[in-house]
Amino acid sequence: MARNTQVTADHNAPAVTQILAKFVATHPSKGWSDEVDLEAHRTFMNWLGCAVGATGHEAADAALAAVQVLQPAAQASVLGRATKVDMASAALLNGITSHTFDFDDTHLKTIIHPAGPVASAILALAEHQNYSGREVIDALVIGIDVACRVGNAMYPDHYDRGWHITGSTGTLGAAAACARLLKLNEQQTAMALGIAASQPIGMREQFGTMTKPFHPGAAARAGLMSALMAQQGFTASPKALEAPRGMMQTVSIKNDWREITHELGERFEISFNSYKPFACGIVIHPSIDACAQLRAKGVRPEQVQRIDLRVHSLVLELTGKKEPVDGLQAKFSVYHGCAAGLTFGFAAEEEFSDHIVTRDDMVALRRKVVATVDDSIDEASADVTATLTDGSKVHVFVEHAIGSLQNPMTQALLEGKFHGLSDPVLGQEQTTALINACWAIGNAANVQSIVQLATPKAP
Amino acid sequence: MARNTQVTADHNAPAVTQILAKFVATHPSKGWSDEVDLEAHRTFMNWLGCAVGATGHEAADAALAAVQVLQPAAQASVLGRATKVDMASAALLNGITSHTFDFDDTHLKTIIHPAGPVASAILALAEHQNYSGREVIDALVIGIDVACRVGNAMYPDHYDRGWHITGSTGTLGAAAACARLLKLNEQQTAMALGIAASQPIGMREQFGTMTKPFHPGAAARAGLMSALMAQQGFTASPKALEAPRGMMQTVSIKNDWREITHELGERFEISFNSYKPFACGIVIHPSIDACAQLRAKGVRPEQVQRIDLRVHSLVLELTGKKEPVDGLQAKFSVYHGCAAGLTFGFAAEEEFSDHIVTRDDMVALRRKVVATVDDSIDEASADVTATLTDGSKVHVFVEHAIGSLQNPMTQALLEGKFHGLSDPVLGQEQTTALINACWAIGNAANVQSIVQLATPKAP
Repeated sequence: MARNTQVTADHNAPAVTQILAKFVATHPSKGWSDEVDLEAHRTFMNWLGCAVGATGHEAADAALAAVQVLQPAAQASVLGRATKVDMASAALLNGITSHTFDFDDTHLKTIIHPAGPVASAILALAEHQNYSGREVIDALVIGIDVACRVGNAMYPDHYDRGWHITGSTGTLGAAAACARLLKLNEQQTAMALGIAASQPIGMREQFGTMTKPFHPGAAARAGLMSALMAQQGFTASPKALEAPRGMMQTVSIKNDWREITHELGERFEISFNSYKPFACGIVIHPSIDACAQLRAKGVRPEQVQRIDLRVHSLVLELTGKKEPVDGLQAKFSVYHGCAAGLTFGFAAEEEFSDHIVTRDDMVALRRKVVATVDDSIDEASADVTATLTDGSKVHVFVEHAIGSLQNPMTQALLEGKFHGLSDPVLGQEQTTALINACWAIGNAANVQSIVQLATPKAP
Repeated sequence: MARNTQVTADHNAPAVTQILAKFVATHPSKGWSDEVDLEAHRTFMNWLGCAVGATGHEAADAALAAVQVLQPAAQASVLGRATKVDMASAALLNGITSHTFDFDDTHLKTIIHPAGPVASAILALAEHQNYSGREVIDALVIGIDVACRVGNAMYPDHYDRGWHITGSTGTLGAAAACARLLKLNEQQTAMALGIAASQPIGMREQFGTMTKPFHPGAAARAGLMSALMAQQGFTASPKALEAPRGMMQTVSIKNDWREITHELGERFEISFNSYKPFACGIVIHPSIDACAQLRAKGVRPEQVQRIDLRVHSLVLELTGKKEPVDGLQAKFSVYHGCAAGLTFGFAAEEEFSDHIVTRDDMVALRRKVVATVDDSIDEASADVTATLTDGSKVHVFVEHAIGSLQNPMTQALLEGKFHGLSDPVLGQEQTTALINACWAIGNAANVQSIVQLATPKAP
């Protein structure tokens, strides 16, 4: 029934569904700089390492068990396991594992983790239908561009009202990427985006539960299926994104359409992707980095009498837990971050595990950290002074932590992170081969060697 | 990052996720009146007829083709076809076909079409895992109660801002119903609802495309998978519905929690379900009914010189198309509705097909209808006077059209509607047997005979 409503609507939005569809369907292969293409390889590799690393997590066990009730065909690999399932379920499962450790990539403008939905969908599709590595990288750049541009348009209102923006924009990114791989034409691609637009996934209330990493997985799955349906002639509104009762106006009050159209095909949002060096919230990273630099300067935990940490108030507000009792609590403890940085020189998933967090030496070292609020220090920075038992002091100031856009992870650091995640699953030798295959994917005839290398050898 | 936001939040919501989970997991089998149980049978039968009737639609063809790319296991039946797919895909496909003709049930308080998501999920699950007909009816009543109570709490704001409420609440209904069938305990059921809460599906912009019926199908699929994942130990927030950044506050400004908790387990929303006699928007129904009553009084099209129709202004605003050129346009033409009512005595999908709509006699009869706005007449009523060629007049006033809550479809009318949908697919004899099996489902040991009767015999 018609009814007057208080809900506002913008009836003059540009035709962004069609504009994006044209971009997805017609932008040239590798139609961007070498820097953008390298970033795509870095994004892909970082995503793959995260997925392999978390493959044995109980969230993956539970999701896989549910999928197996459906007796899926063996079409595509579950990364890090000697198991194949249908490609839509593989997209779901690899999307879940890639986000389980919260260690995947971050598009800092929107807090979207874009690879989870996009790469999980296209690797499964490419494995089953034998697309080339070049096509996969093209689809990755384009799919991430779609998800992040829609995210830019809606952020921050959309996020503030409760949406986990990774899942809600991720369905569109995955649909775009799969439409590209499937070589859908403009009209079919608009339908794929339209079907996907009816499936935004994920609320922030789920943070801290398995359903958080379910969001990118479910988005990957839904995006892939949307593209497959469009390929078969299934229809949707050609204005599904921008119409007054379309997706974007339904899930966000703020919609800056220019974020979608401006420099489309010239600027690529994957350029603004970043990779976490440490397996915890980004607000702790400068402090960990500073303590790792103390270690690099020769400071050892047993020499330390006291560590003075000066940080922005937000750091202690979010991560001020002084005496964490387990790994999960330690992820909200800048004190543990400092202790791990000084003890190990880094802080990956293992350094946030229960058995490390509860070690006597870690408890003792955390207690030597004295944190002080100093709002003249940016929240992306940290100031650390170690006072040693001989009375001498060593000082480190980190302006931009490693992993930030200003101080990105080097290739070597990304490889080290990958080894930390993958060696326990695949062994060091196979992991090295997998890393090399990731760097070479853009020239690979297909992705078969990558998925084979991501499968553990029978014992 | 923490940030002050203008988005309001209700931090004092009752624990509706847990309250609903307890209801779903512990309410006694057939813990309601005979009238409620009969309504469940009527809902089930009406849903099944709609799904069988639309099985050959091109939307079903396209969706099935996409599903078959996944090489699904033959677990559950696609209604009206000699095809089985995995049960999650069967839920999707039967959900699509049940809503394709827009001829399924309507919970009038919220405009939710509740059977599509709920019945599609549970019939597929029951077929594969051999649950009894009693368990299916129990799950149907309970699942529909969950979806419609959540809908009552959010309506109309949630609908007004763009959500197709059938899909957005349907995932929860399907998850609840499947959790019930799977005999999940309270805690697992809360997790199933929680996983489902991250997957509200569908925007109103999709109306008029295949993605509209996709919404109940996708909700059925997502709800079933949510329950299967919860069964395997997958976790979600136990406050996923009501928390400030949970589903309901994310997708609706209005949330009247009492609609969920008041008389839970005593009043059942399926009691307020209704079934369309005519395959078009409900606003035309009183006019069709009035003209069908003219026919019942002996008036024939060839005798008619003029038909004077007096209706509320809304009727002409929404369905004032005087010269429809095809079936789709005819669904928005009260003139065609009158012509069909007088010519056939009813107006099912066939009477809105292109070849009927463009017939010369229908064109001529439509042109004899003179519609006048009279806002003293309720929008649920119609006043019709036929002037015959001999100068005599015949008058009918319909206060509540057939199919309304005040004047519900009788069992005989429901059976007639079912035959109209199913006879072309299954033949009259098999359709009669299927109708009888639907009436008897509450006492059936399993649903195998129903799905077999809903499968066309090999030619």
